[in-house]
Amino acid sequence: MSLNLTILGCHSATPRVNAYPTSQFLEINNRHFLIDCGEGTQRQMRKYKVGFSKINHIFISHLHGDHFYGLVGLLSTYGILSREKELHVYGPEGIKEVTLLQLKISQSHAKYPIIFHELSSTESELIFEDKNISVRTIPLNHRVYTNGYLFTEKEKSKKLHLDNISNYEEIDKADYLNIKAGKDIVLSTGEVVPNSELTLPSKKLLSYAFCSDTKYKPDIIPLIKNADLLYHEATFLDDKKDLAKKTKHSTSKEAAQIAKDANVNQLVIGHYSGRYKDISLFRKEAQEIFENTELAEPGKTFKINAKD
Amino acid sequence: MSLNLTILGCHSATPRVNAYPTSQFLEINNRHFLIDCGEGTQRQMRKYKVGFSKINHIFISHLHGDHFYGLVGLLSTYGILSREKELHVYGPEGIKEVTLLQLKISQSHAKYPIIFHELSSTESELIFEDKNISVRTIPLNHRVYTNGYLFTEKEKSKKLHLDNISNYEEIDKADYLNIKAGKDIVLSTGEVVPNSELTLPSKKLLSYAFCSDTKYKPDIIPLIKNADLLYHEATFLDDKKDLAKKTKHSTSKEAAQIAKDANVNQLVIGHYSGRYKDISLFRKEAQEIFENTELAEPGKTFKINAKD
Repeated sequence: MSLNLTILGCHSATPRVNAYPTSQFLEINNRHFLIDCGEGTQRQMRKYKVGFSKINHIFISHLHGDHFYGLVGLLSTYGILSREKELHVYGPEGIKEVTLLQLKISQSHAKYPIIFHELSSTESELIFEDKNISVRTIPLNHRVYTNGYLFTEKEKSKKLHLDNISNYEEIDKADYLNIKAGKDIVLSTGEVVPNSELTLPSKKLLSYAFCSDTKYKPDIIPLIKNADLLYHEATFLDDKKDLAKKTKHSTSKEAAQIAKDANVNQLVIGHYSGRYKDISLFRKEAQEIFENTELAEPGKTFKINAKD
Repeated sequence: MSLNLTILGCHSATPRVNAYPTSQFLEINNRHFLIDCGEGTQRQMRKYKVGFSKINHIFISHLHGDHFYGLVGLLSTYGILSREKELHVYGPEGIKEVTLLQLKISQSHAKYPIIFHELSSTESELIFEDKNISVRTIPLNHRVYTNGYLFTEKEKSKKLHLDNISNYEEIDKADYLNIKAGKDIVLSTGEVVPNSELTLPSKKLLSYAFCSDTKYKPDIIPLIKNADLLYHEATFLDDKKDLAKKTKHSTSKEAAQIAKDANVNQLVIGHYSGRYKDISLFRKEAQEIFENTELAEPGKTFKINAKD
């Protein structure tokens, strides 16, 4: 089990030569997700060798242009590339209408099904699940309706602790499926043998929390508690904390405070305002509160392997 | 009077790392125009130092994504940059609805007026005129409704040929305004003195014809006759002329034939299909028919100064 995050873009909206709006490619437990899709994302995907065909699920946090103006271009390209597989797009209400109108007017005859999952709840909800992964929304507080996303590995079937099992004559191969599925075993005496005795300890399940854009919102902490990796926006330094509040963005210190209080393993910050020439200051300020902070930069990857 | 064309993007739709969809910045007779606006255009404008505030008119040829998906991002950025000046957008019917819906859904509160000029005529029409410049459509033939654009300098008031004027005692300063405006002078004897005798020869009026995307369409030749600079799409080499016909694109040779038959001064080709690794072949094939052919490449500029 592993988690591999590639930053495709990590700057705020004003265009600069070497600045790219938000987009990330996440590989987790053999699943591949695109998170946000600012203008130029498909070019960044080519640059950093993200296989277009790997992606079946795209998660859009909110409908500000720097987080979704690249979506229609990518969907059109899938048409040009003769994609046939279903593509699922998750995002706020309205994303379907605007995307379909653009595809219609540009006569992008996508032959593949695009399935939109429009979100409107302000409570965290489970929006995707398969045998490897679950994805929950993280309701954020920005100028428009916004969700972060929490990606969590799911436990595969448990491994048998054959030594311990051999202590019980009564337990045979017919019980193994139940044990792997996590069930306790009841002996003919009525004694209950707990599953934990019959199986090996599980590997830790990895999780990644993506939180952009948002003002400082400590009520997300229980949701993202102990995440292995947290991306949290940090648009401003502490010198502009009033502007952060006004525009519903976070400062670097606020992102770090969330990371600390949620006890995450590593924090990645990004969405830097164009007013700052030296982005290393973002890390410096964050590290005063949370040491294990890294800067998002285009092409940078963050890799985490599960330990026992 | 001068004409300066900067190529911002010149490739066809499939994204590649160093490929950018169509967009051009034109300076002509102290006016500044953006022509087409594929995804990533605003970033290319930054890269090649095109002043955002110079542009008041944007001309979109057709509504395929690689020619207009960058428009909404640019319009949003003008909002972020607190633009107040009017912006005029020319393009096919439908461009207004799709652009306004995107701006609305992304809550890009543009404070400046955006004036859409939607085109639907299949005849060439004059769509913009001021004292320096006129712009006409060049109806093209592509899979969707498409126009090229012809930008032509307008003659300023003529310069007086004072030596010749002094031969006519009867002509005095009161006549100068009429002479500058191009009028002949009728003497009291009834003799007509032609304007050409009373004024210095005009500088040549420069013109630029932009033609993308289109199949080979020789009926545009009278419209673009003697243009100083012609951009004509060349999506395919001669080996794919059947595919060009089928997809309503042109080959390099067809672009060159148009240039030759229209007697233009210089031809620039672009919109190369991604299947060709070596774009120099496009020039090679074109030059068999029209010698003064250059390749469009991002950042390349074409400058023409008027001669007497």
